Amino acid sequence: MGNDTDTPEARLAALGIILPEPAAPIASYVPSVEVGGVIYISGQLPFVDGVVMTGRLGEDRDVAFGQAAARACGIMLVAQMKAALGSLDRVARIVKLGVFISSAGTFTDQPLVANGASDLMINVFGDLGRHARSAVGVPVLPRGAAVEIDAIVAVRPA
Amino acid sequence: MGNDTDTPEARLAALGIILPEPAAPIASYVPSVEVGGVIYISGQLPFVDGVVMTGRLGEDRDVAFGQAAARACGIMLVAQMKAALGSLDRVARIVKLGVFISSAGTFTDQPLVANGASDLMINVFGDLGRHARSAVGVPVLPRGAAVEIDAIVAVRPA
Amino acid sequence: MGNDTDTPEARLAALGIILPEPAAPIASYVPSVEVGGVIYISGQLPFVDGVVMTGRLGEDRDVAFGQAAARACGIMLVAQMKAALGSLDRVARIVKLGVFISSAGTFTDQPLVANGASDLMINVFGDLGRHARSAVGVPVLPRGAAVEIDAIVAVRPA
Repeated sequence: MGNDTDTPEARLAALGIILPEPAAPIASYVPSVEVGGVIYISGQLPFVDGVVMTGRLGEDRDVAFGQAAARACGIMLVAQMKAALGSLDRVARIVKLGVFISSAGTFTDQPLVANGASDLMINVFGDLGRHARSAVGVPVLPRGAAVEIDAIVAVRPA
Repeated sequence: MGNDTDTPEARLAALGIILPEPAAPIASYVPSVEVGGVIYISGQLPFVDGVVMTGRLGEDRDVAFGQAAARACGIMLVAQMKAALGSLDRVARIVKLGVFISSAGTFTDQPLVANGASDLMINVFGDLGRHARSAVGVPVLPRGAAVEIDAIVAVRPA
Repeated sequence: MGNDTDTPEARLAALGIILPEPAAPIASYVPSVEVGGVIYISGQLPFVDGVVMTGRLGEDRDVAFGQAAARACGIMLVAQMKAALGSLDRVARIVKLGVFISSAGTFTDQPLVANGASDLMINVFGDLGRHARSAVGVPVLPRGAAVEIDAIVAVRPA
């Protein structure tokens, strides 16, 4: 596994990120399901200290805000991985992020916004964090969130 | 398999749900594809007696209507599972629902709407129906549908 | 493998399609990830000769334009498969397309538009190209694209 600084947990610490309590689903579903060596993580909203980052890109929010919201979604995803897997060392690969960005009809920089989550994955998981992705605009998200992201993650046996 | 009342088919009967004819794709694709123990089911519209439930949440439709539409999408998904698998006893787990809800820009209760489908899956499949989920707003859906839902389902060998 | 005209490469040639250089991601992610016999391909925009087909269906673009854009996304997906797999003969099945269509709120023919990509997959891969699909309207896409499509593809070992 290399030395301690090579682990996702060590990288989180170096980034000064303390994983939040993973969000309880706000409805009749579960945070993640594992099947055939892959976990599917439910869409995560950008909670920071329990408050959702709201707004719409190209209207009342700019790219920097959107990137921070995408990063917050990413941190919630990592918290769900930790809750589901016990240790982040079990992450074999971040496979795919599905990024939904609340957007005015004139806003076309969804890729820049989504980078807030993508960069986090690479910072935390290194080459294992390099993922496929789609990023699209949507008119509105649950609770008025600025960004929602779901994920597919390949895992190692416990 | 336990007694008869434990099966998805028995639960459907107890719920008074008669599965409709699964929808023929309205275009150049197929209703589902199985690969590696998982089936991917195409996005299903909320048909009831062959008529699509149309409209937009937060505009001309309320949450109760949206939940009924989501449940109708869920019933169409179950009908596709039955058509693809022969028996619903082959469902090993409802893995993921992707829920798209036609929404006015001010409507943020997508999770409540999506519960119409999520609750159905739990009612029909019990613990095997507990799934990951994303739910997002969209401006418009095929045929003016209020909701569209696709699914990933883990299956047992025939 | 049958004779030469049965291969995806031969069908591309018969269709007069020369695969473009696969698009470099315009952000911090990778074009595709392979895991467990499946590749996940990032959302592709409709580049033609390096220029994105932009616009919004039901507003400044019609169904024929949308179908051409969806087909262009499909060609970009095939180019990514070729880049990831070396040979298109390794495609075991096109499993799922996720089709996002920039749509005015009154436009409900997303399935017709998406057929531009679905028909291409069947033309290139034959029965192996028959896939599950979801098609939804969105208000706006990266770079103002008219269509974005991601894909899940089952592959044979190299």
